[in-house]
Amino acid sequence: MQPGAAARRLDRLRAACADECMGAFLVRDTSNIAWLTAFDGVFDDESAHALLVDPQAAVLHTDSRYSEAARAAASPEGSIVVDAQRATHAEFAVKSVAALQEQGCGRASQEGACEQAPRFHLGIEDSLALSNYRALESAFAGSAVKLRETSNFVLGLRAVKDASEIARMKAAQAVTDAAFAHIVGFMRVGMTEREVQIELEDFMRRRGADGLAFSSIVAAGPNGASPHAIPGATRLEAGQCVVLDFGARAYGYCSDMTRTVFLGQPDARMRSAYEAIRAANEQVEALLGPGVTGKEAHELAERVLAEAGFAGKMGHGLGHGVGIDVHEEPVLSPRNDRPLAAGNVVTVEPGVYLPGEFGMRLEDFGVITESGFEVFTCSPHDPVVL
Amino acid sequence: MQPGAAARRLDRLRAACADECMGAFLVRDTSNIAWLTAFDGVFDDESAHALLVDPQAAVLHTDSRYSEAARAAASPEGSIVVDAQRATHAEFAVKSVAALQEQGCGRASQEGACEQAPRFHLGIEDSLALSNYRALESAFAGSAVKLRETSNFVLGLRAVKDASEIARMKAAQAVTDAAFAHIVGFMRVGMTEREVQIELEDFMRRRGADGLAFSSIVAAGPNGASPHAIPGATRLEAGQCVVLDFGARAYGYCSDMTRTVFLGQPDARMRSAYEAIRAANEQVEALLGPGVTGKEAHELAERVLAEAGFAGKMGHGLGHGVGIDVHEEPVLSPRNDRPLAAGNVVTVEPGVYLPGEFGMRLEDFGVITESGFEVFTCSPHDPVVL
Repeated sequence: MQPGAAARRLDRLRAACADECMGAFLVRDTSNIAWLTAFDGVFDDESAHALLVDPQAAVLHTDSRYSEAARAAASPEGSIVVDAQRATHAEFAVKSVAALQEQGCGRASQEGACEQAPRFHLGIEDSLALSNYRALESAFAGSAVKLRETSNFVLGLRAVKDASEIARMKAAQAVTDAAFAHIVGFMRVGMTEREVQIELEDFMRRRGADGLAFSSIVAAGPNGASPHAIPGATRLEAGQCVVLDFGARAYGYCSDMTRTVFLGQPDARMRSAYEAIRAANEQVEALLGPGVTGKEAHELAERVLAEAGFAGKMGHGLGHGVGIDVHEEPVLSPRNDRPLAAGNVVTVEPGVYLPGEFGMRLEDFGVITESGFEVFTCSPHDPVVL
Repeated sequence: MQPGAAARRLDRLRAACADECMGAFLVRDTSNIAWLTAFDGVFDDESAHALLVDPQAAVLHTDSRYSEAARAAASPEGSIVVDAQRATHAEFAVKSVAALQEQGCGRASQEGACEQAPRFHLGIEDSLALSNYRALESAFAGSAVKLRETSNFVLGLRAVKDASEIARMKAAQAVTDAAFAHIVGFMRVGMTEREVQIELEDFMRRRGADGLAFSSIVAAGPNGASPHAIPGATRLEAGQCVVLDFGARAYGYCSDMTRTVFLGQPDARMRSAYEAIRAANEQVEALLGPGVTGKEAHELAERVLAEAGFAGKMGHGLGHGVGIDVHEEPVLSPRNDRPLAAGNVVTVEPGVYLPGEFGMRLEDFGVITESGFEVFTCSPHDPVVL
């Protein structure tokens, strides 16, 4: 329960819709719906819901598998109505928009600043499956309703987190840090990557995680050179470094951290790679604050890595937003030249990948504050040698 | 490794494309790509890949996070080429189709049965995100290429499983049955749903599951009346029934089972509901075989439940296909009036949900054979009373 959260978030969406002359917005992305409703413990992975937000109301269209739980979550909040009538989401949208038009709503978009929009504009997400888009297109065919395709419209609003969201991510990270401390004591040469993964994930679940933010990466030696390696039967060997990339989910929000640990003293090349990613991580974390762009942060990391002799060895973006989803807005990458804002929660995860040799990554996450960057990750950066 | 599997599956897709006069097919759904390539241990949850299948070749376009693992998986198989050049998937598709057109490929679709198709037809999936569709549309604008939207085109091929896939699902179910035997010995009045879920999932992971087929359901008493309840802090109480719906993933394939267990002797109403779902389950499993439709199976279950006094208390479809994804084709529901075929793997999961009282479900899964239905689930149907 996040008192008032749904009302505040719905109002942010309503304001954004008014700015864009949209009479209503149809949300299908489950994470967007979870954020707007602020319902806890209702939604799973299925894309089974639609939320129609208009200037006055917000109606969740769902089915009998979820309606009991949704009603229980909705009642104290009051800003969401649950509709479990059997109908397709397209039929639900047509019915809802028709009712709005009858009440004269959406006329606002025909007045003043919105005079150029004589039709009722219904906002939709371009993350929608093409089949669902076709169903909407055909359901509204011949009507005076225009479907307005938007990119990251709700996701853009989600990029600025409120205090309740930050508290949830700190709670998720606390479990994740505890899991790292545990796994460092558990890992031994001779274990498989998979054994380490199972112990790591079981620890997070038993210590308070709702679930995992994503399937954990445990990548030993040359496997670490694949940034998205899948843990397998490879056994940990002395002299290797091992990449551990994992996160918990707490109260519906994700954490995300990576540490690289050494099985015995690292050789000179490993040491210099580790110093490079550590310097890149720490210099970026010192730089971050409102007004810095994602591109500037990424380029600083690339520069630090290049100066240490690892030019072009990262290959991925420096970081990404985190929230209900483990990959959100904003990203720290060459394609984001917009300034970061207070409330953005991002990862900082420079890496060096040397195919056939090893890979390394050092990832924290935290929130952009008025004065800089508050790191949620408490595990230190000093090399861990087992 | 499934020797020859990729070549056989790609040929099935090529034949289907030829029937539909498509010169090539662009696959974006990760499960479809996993099936067509038969790569083990390469793909995670990210929708980061594109596979272009033409009459001669199949090229996987991926990025540096996955390319090492993809190349390692591809080499012994030989039917897949890995392309990790930096480009958008739309640019990759345009370049690939242009090369085909230069080689004169796709002309086949201008001859014979396909004379009505003077342009190069590129098959795409309508499960594609609208944003990705728009990118393709704009990349091919002004070209002689027509994007052909298909529904469940590859998923339809996946509906008939081969021996290797069936073996993988039996392995997944063996872990799942073992987990049920374990959890029955573990569950006690006073535990929370969440504690039971954690133990169940940890058991599956430690006993050979690659992961979970989906987040497990443990729903006690009235919570069981929500078919998609999320396990929480509710404590198990004497006199309740508890719905356990869970599955493992093994070698990339899912299992799916549900059992309802009793905490103490069930009362008369619970007993009669359990007898009803058991009768529905067993009568449908006896009916299933090639030629029976999904609708007929569903309606038989509804009839058995109605005769026992539980008309309209199921509210969901009777079953669904299972494979790489936990929900695949074909479905056992009123909307499927096509006959089932040997090789289809489906669940049979009648349920009764009484809001405020309790819910129950009994789910097996298995394969349609030439002569009937082979159930993979080994846990018995006799009521389990703890």
